Amino acid sequence: VGEQGILRSLRPYLSRAGGDLIVAAPDDDAAVWRTRAGLQVSTVDTMVEGIDFRPSWPGFHFRLLGRRLMAINLSDLAAMGAQPRDALISLCLPPTLPLESVRDLYRGIAEQGRRFGCAIAGGDISAIEGPLVLTAVLTGMIPAGRRPLRRSGARAGWQIAVTGTLGNAALGLRALERHQVPQRRWVKALLDPEPRVQAGLILSASGVSVAGDISDGLFREVARIAQPVRLGAVIDVAALPIDRRGKGAPGLADLGRSEDFELICAAPPHRVLAAAARMRRDLRLPLTVIGRLTLKSGIRIMEQGKEHQVDVLGYQHFH
Amino acid sequence: VGEQGILRSLRPYLSRAGGDLIVAAPDDDAAVWRTRAGLQVSTVDTMVEGIDFRPSWPGFHFRLLGRRLMAINLSDLAAMGAQPRDALISLCLPPTLPLESVRDLYRGIAEQGRRFGCAIAGGDISAIEGPLVLTAVLTGMIPAGRRPLRRSGARAGWQIAVTGTLGNAALGLRALERHQVPQRRWVKALLDPEPRVQAGLILSASGVSVAGDISDGLFREVARIAQPVRLGAVIDVAALPIDRRGKGAPGLADLGRSEDFELICAAPPHRVLAAAARMRRDLRLPLTVIGRLTLKSGIRIMEQGKEHQVDVLGYQHFH
Repeated sequence: VGEQGILRSLRPYLSRAGGDLIVAAPDDDAAVWRTRAGLQVSTVDTMVEGIDFRPSWPGFHFRLLGRRLMAINLSDLAAMGAQPRDALISLCLPPTLPLESVRDLYRGIAEQGRRFGCAIAGGDISAIEGPLVLTAVLTGMIPAGRRPLRRSGARAGWQIAVTGTLGNAALGLRALERHQVPQRRWVKALLDPEPRVQAGLILSASGVSVAGDISDGLFREVARIAQPVRLGAVIDVAALPIDRRGKGAPGLADLGRSEDFELICAAPPHRVLAAAARMRRDLRLPLTVIGRLTLKSGIRIMEQGKEHQVDVLGYQHFH
Repeated sequence: VGEQGILRSLRPYLSRAGGDLIVAAPDDDAAVWRTRAGLQVSTVDTMVEGIDFRPSWPGFHFRLLGRRLMAINLSDLAAMGAQPRDALISLCLPPTLPLESVRDLYRGIAEQGRRFGCAIAGGDISAIEGPLVLTAVLTGMIPAGRRPLRRSGARAGWQIAVTGTLGNAALGLRALERHQVPQRRWVKALLDPEPRVQAGLILSASGVSVAGDISDGLFREVARIAQPVRLGAVIDVAALPIDRRGKGAPGLADLGRSEDFELICAAPPHRVLAAAARMRRDLRLPLTVIGRLTLKSGIRIMEQGKEHQVDVLGYQHFH
């Protein structure tokens, strides 16, 4: 039973969207509430030592871990088009962890919070006889007059586009696991990913309505956008914004499991164009068209003129 | 370094109250935000297997564990005088945990949510090579026109009162740890505590402004109310609402470490009287005066006409 399978089997116990609860996770990356102050978005994400990170990784630092904890949650807010407001942090600390490491963790958390205007409003600390566990809960607001970005709602013929560069996190992980010297941008993508908060706000300001983040794998996220609306998608391999500098460019399998914290969106071509122009101008960040949604079902890649079905399952915690 | 010591050393990284952030945890049981929709309260609490519970306890059931996860967080909202709105849940599941247990957990979570009008808005699931870890984040709203209950603000001469009955959770824990047959009300207090949500709302509706929950121990919570305002307190042992039915009534040491999810408040006598009358009428729940705040410093107990200083440290996770 995979993580998705577990969540599916728990669905009867989760509240359905209705009334002021506009979006109930796990349909999207976060829950959305209608309040008199506007639309409020909340998300929770946990990192577990030994599963999500290993202190033995070269380049590992607790400050970066704190930054990453915030980044994965900020990315969930970004994928909804929300402006971060505050964070609550819960840590389970093994008795062997030095206080200095905990302080470094919080230094990273606070640093990332400041960068994105997100207050660290509270914390909880527990002991654990086991691995370090870090949970962050982030709340953000949808700017007035805008709607939250959603996974659902895409239409056939819409373009699919992604921010930034793909595959670096997978290369970083592979290098670390094989005790090879990783390239600096791979380690940065893996250990200190940049949440695309401003890019998410630009997407929604540009009239884009469908988006997600691809931290569970590119193809899986394409499937999450296409399948609920009974569409398929075709991805043009030549168009993928892969960094080919140096040796060891990522392959398609890498893209499938790479924990890149980039945003993906689907929209009519003129909206993608508008968002891309604004992102380039304001953030110097590329928004690259990589494919389109199709009436034909299945997630396919187009490579050298031929279409292949792809295995959409990206990296999963449960196998 | 105790849990409090760690939190103190992290204070520089936590945001200070200011602007729309009215209360920053860990000063109180939760963080409070001013929004155009009113005052919003958020709290996070984590339970760790082996530290906070053991599946080997007689009477243990995953459904009750789910109820307890909600209860400890609902109690934090109750201590602020907030009406629960929604919960986000994060679980770290050991690979050996049967899916049926996870479902039971969620059954308890959903059950408790329904009882208190709290939507289960989303969830996150991670794998862990270690103990089961459960985190809940609850958000609630302060009813219009009221102020959040706070730990700070008490004055000398004010009465100290507690809801319900004290010490049963400690007796339950002691019995379980000694493999004795516990009394039913002890097990209920330990495994399935009742969060005092309605009582918290009555306190604030009655004009009480200072309150907390005593799940970290009675005397410790008295100290948290008295010490920041440079007061002391005297507790009348004869007045403590201890259940003396059957054998093995709890002693003072039990009260110090008992994880009772009762509320404590401090207020002028006429306000305590008003709140007690309303609680008795609407909830059939006693609110018992157990002592008062004094200009004389120190937390003391009055027993058979004599005053003794008490060790305020209740049960702490870190020693």
